Amino acid sequence: MAPVTNPLLSDRHLEFLLYEVLEAEKLLAFPHFADHSRETFDAYVGVCRRLSRDVVFPAYRAVDEESPRLLEGRVHVHPRIHEIWPRLVELGVISASRPFDVGGQQLPLTVATAAHLYIMAGLTSAYSYAGLTTGAGHLVEAYGSAGLKARYLEALYSGRWAGTMALTEPDAGSSLSDVATRAVPAGDHYLLSGAKTFISGGDQDLTENIVHMVLARIEGAPAGIKGVSLFLVPKLRPEGEGLVPNDVRAAGLIHKIGWRGLPSVVLSFGEAGDCHGWLVGEPHQGIAYMFQMMNEARIVVGADAVATASVAYQESLAYAKGRLQGRPSGSKDPRQPQVPIIEHADVRRMLLRQKAIVEGGLALVLRVARFCDVAGTSPSVEERRRAQLLLDLLTPVAKSFPAEKGFESNALAVQVHGGYGYSSEYLPEAWLRDQKLNSIHEGTTGIQGLDLLGRKVLAEGGASLRVLLEEIGFACDRAEKASLPPEWPAALRSAGKAIAVLTGELAARAKGGDVEGMLRHSADYLELFSTLVVSWLWLEQAAVARESVAAGGGPADFHEGILAAAGYWIRTELPRVDALVTLCRENEDSYARMQPGWF
Amino acid sequence: MAPVTNPLLSDRHLEFLLYEVLEAEKLLAFPHFADHSRETFDAYVGVCRRLSRDVVFPAYRAVDEESPRLLEGRVHVHPRIHEIWPRLVELGVISASRPFDVGGQQLPLTVATAAHLYIMAGLTSAYSYAGLTTGAGHLVEAYGSAGLKARYLEALYSGRWAGTMALTEPDAGSSLSDVATRAVPAGDHYLLSGAKTFISGGDQDLTENIVHMVLARIEGAPAGIKGVSLFLVPKLRPEGEGLVPNDVRAAGLIHKIGWRGLPSVVLSFGEAGDCHGWLVGEPHQGIAYMFQMMNEARIVVGADAVATASVAYQESLAYAKGRLQGRPSGSKDPRQPQVPIIEHADVRRMLLRQKAIVEGGLALVLRVARFCDVAGTSPSVEERRRAQLLLDLLTPVAKSFPAEKGFESNALAVQVHGGYGYSSEYLPEAWLRDQKLNSIHEGTTGIQGLDLLGRKVLAEGGASLRVLLEEIGFACDRAEKASLPPEWPAALRSAGKAIAVLTGELAARAKGGDVEGMLRHSADYLELFSTLVVSWLWLEQAAVARESVAAGGGPADFHEGILAAAGYWIRTELPRVDALVTLCRENEDSYARMQPGWF
Repeated sequence: MAPVTNPLLSDRHLEFLLYEVLEAEKLLAFPHFADHSRETFDAYVGVCRRLSRDVVFPAYRAVDEESPRLLEGRVHVHPRIHEIWPRLVELGVISASRPFDVGGQQLPLTVATAAHLYIMAGLTSAYSYAGLTTGAGHLVEAYGSAGLKARYLEALYSGRWAGTMALTEPDAGSSLSDVATRAVPAGDHYLLSGAKTFISGGDQDLTENIVHMVLARIEGAPAGIKGVSLFLVPKLRPEGEGLVPNDVRAAGLIHKIGWRGLPSVVLSFGEAGDCHGWLVGEPHQGIAYMFQMMNEARIVVGADAVATASVAYQESLAYAKGRLQGRPSGSKDPRQPQVPIIEHADVRRMLLRQKAIVEGGLALVLRVARFCDVAGTSPSVEERRRAQLLLDLLTPVAKSFPAEKGFESNALAVQVHGGYGYSSEYLPEAWLRDQKLNSIHEGTTGIQGLDLLGRKVLAEGGASLRVLLEEIGFACDRAEKASLPPEWPAALRSAGKAIAVLTGELAARAKGGDVEGMLRHSADYLELFSTLVVSWLWLEQAAVARESVAAGGGPADFHEGILAAAGYWIRTELPRVDALVTLCRENEDSYARMQPGWF
Repeated sequence: MAPVTNPLLSDRHLEFLLYEVLEAEKLLAFPHFADHSRETFDAYVGVCRRLSRDVVFPAYRAVDEESPRLLEGRVHVHPRIHEIWPRLVELGVISASRPFDVGGQQLPLTVATAAHLYIMAGLTSAYSYAGLTTGAGHLVEAYGSAGLKARYLEALYSGRWAGTMALTEPDAGSSLSDVATRAVPAGDHYLLSGAKTFISGGDQDLTENIVHMVLARIEGAPAGIKGVSLFLVPKLRPEGEGLVPNDVRAAGLIHKIGWRGLPSVVLSFGEAGDCHGWLVGEPHQGIAYMFQMMNEARIVVGADAVATASVAYQESLAYAKGRLQGRPSGSKDPRQPQVPIIEHADVRRMLLRQKAIVEGGLALVLRVARFCDVAGTSPSVEERRRAQLLLDLLTPVAKSFPAEKGFESNALAVQVHGGYGYSSEYLPEAWLRDQKLNSIHEGTTGIQGLDLLGRKVLAEGGASLRVLLEEIGFACDRAEKASLPPEWPAALRSAGKAIAVLTGELAARAKGGDVEGMLRHSADYLELFSTLVVSWLWLEQAAVARESVAAGGGPADFHEGILAAAGYWIRTELPRVDALVTLCRENEDSYARMQPGWF
């Protein structure tokens, strides 16, 4: 078969989401975005899309085949990353959504995310340098002293220097309260010592300097989370007009099974006692600050997972249209020519499931980005509050749903390719490897479940869940008006009600002192909650599609596809909520009771 | 952490299955197995286990890191495979379950499979040479002429030569009716020409000769399945006292992402017009014959999938017991030491889910092997018939359930390892790659669903389903007598009834002419059916465990683990059947209606 040009994402669907479903143009009414227009939005999406199709994606295979190397203390990344990085910098990817006054383009995060999805779909590890630098810059912007800002912000946002987040230590992965890196005061700065691991982009030869945002413990600080502070630790520290080495050493590389463009580095700080770090914000507030970067990163992970599922979906779709094999179940005459495998119902099932996951995940990630925009820039206090509630509530969902279901979707893309899918001559297996990281980094799926059920859903007396159910109610009303099958909104209303009741029961369990009992089925809760949320977003897409059809004449292929995927999801996935609610309610206790010796 | 010695499978569980659940000793009452005893069974399992732990598994990483190479027309496999192969031959792995009179050990397949599971868990690609050779030998044994038997059988069963199954062609993968390889009569033999691809072990430098079992079309044969014949095509053909090249060329290698010990070869037959093949059995009966090998291979695939999930489960269990991280949700005092992650409920959930899949899958595969033994060797005609019905019915389940759920289980093993799981310094990612093949080769999962619903479940007027439901009824009775929670058998009876009713409805749909409508949800049907079957096997294991406890005093850890896993599966998975039955019944038609242009 001739190679097919992979579009990475469906342009039509992205446009539909941005302008019809999420009504990005309404953001133009906010003073913060007043200098923008549909044209500037489209222009940014357009240049990122083009760059990814022309430059980023074509590098994918070469980068996947050759891991970064650590030579004489310096990490060397793939030559193709060296070609891509300046192009990302040139487009202003790093500070696309940051304000004009710090050198950004002040674009809505909704639009920036839509644009960056193309880059992620093309080669996610290439985007990551930019994403990490945005996050590090934003920490300096939000919490850094005037001095730190003056010295670092422009360098980061302009891409001269790159940023990292340095949280994990060999003995403190998910358990950040066990961070052991030490910081000893030394005048205007601190001297840091300790080791970090799994630091993405922790060393590289792309940029002149690297700025690590490091969690560490000031000498004498209290144990646990409350004694962790945030430090800015450059690889080279500015002195006078120049830069001098800052005693940060790349001590090793993790051999990742994907994301090969981005080194995962073991860093050693202060081996020679000369690693200077600067406190960011107040002492002992490091975890709270870092959560700004972490929450942003979680949304990026969700976007990345969607992008990784999307590119594989597009690949398997093209393959299924081109690969001839077998005949329809009604006409097995072997003298007839074989048909494209997309003609087989089970292949279409695998493709439609991928579509439902990819496009449902895309709606989720962009919706959350929009809440971010509204929470940060709406002139209405009430609107800001409401968006912030939904943003907080949905962040664990936006992080974990695309990662978990995306992995399933990527496995289906392999499966559609049959035996060829199992070979490294085809790309789906590589995307499957890439995808696996997304359920692990920036908080595993298990941790997202605990975050959702243990914190988010109960915060402010359950206000955010109430707001979410209101939003779902609006979508149901809209679906009914648009004459979608009435069972669809009915099923959503019923699932929403069941989840509200369940959440109340679980909260009561915690109030009664049984916190473990409340959290036992956090994984199931995350799943049922995510299923509801994505069903809501599919219902909304279906309603918008139906309205378009009603307004503009006969149904176009695109709208038919949206309606089919919505119906598939609501009829196939949403019914799973019931059984999951029962599990949570009955508090099925097999693994709770299970003793290590019983395995 | 210090490296942990992976046991590959739980010896205790295997013993429990073999002797307590499956009562392998009862097979000794069949004349066919009269020369055996518990001691010879144990001895064979013991030597295979030891070989795998001492020799096979230690080679895993090295073999995974270096793919086979094709040099000057010959495939070279890994040196460690060269060390392992003679050891497998020496143990008689190839013909373990074949009769004494063809040089076999005449062991029950139940016992041979149990033993071979250790080898598969150690390095599945090493076992495959033996498995393929068994299958090829069995074809010659069953359908070959006296001349072919005399020339090939001993050479295959003794491991001097190896066998392959050569079905797939570039344009005929799942669609075997499109096989295009040609055979032209030439005296006592045929001249073959054509290309095959994805031929496992299609060339190698392990054995003196290779015997390909090839599907091809005799000149003038009818189109389609009914014109396909089976040929034996040696790499070197016996002439006089020697062997001469037979015009079979290794034209290329597929770069598989796992199973690196076993080359996947593109073969070219008869480029010089001198490829001799010998017809096996009657002309045009090739597909029927090949299904003997394919059905055997499907059970081996299931066993392999269980083994691959098992070794990863054992690895993640050991990791979870050793890795310290975080504190129990009740006591977050950071001054307390961290606990092993197995103490966290969600980690135990991931481990228990793996256990339920692995040990449920093991029960399934060994149960099917036992049906094979009974169907082939029981002195009772009625028992043979019943076992054959169940064997046929459960083969697609035994092939696909371990492959699909095993992939999920292997992904959980990665997840339990956190960031380390994403690195190639740890083995779980490699097993995840290995596992992906099992949903593809020997008939994809989609094809298993069509086989189950389109053929197996309706065969002989639904007799096999009736027999299965009887068996499930016996297990329910036994569970009730053993005082297991009464909800467990009740749930099984209810699910069994729902599936029986559904199956009748689907059959009526086909009888009414709507074959597509019957088959539309074959994937969901396969899933709900498999869930029921595995629930049955878990209920049975639980009943046996409970009886043991009742007979022998207080519950041992092992029995507690069985009961917990059974409860987990029956309460967590079995309830999914309802929603799936509804989907099949309502014939949700989103992907059926979906047009290629709508994606």
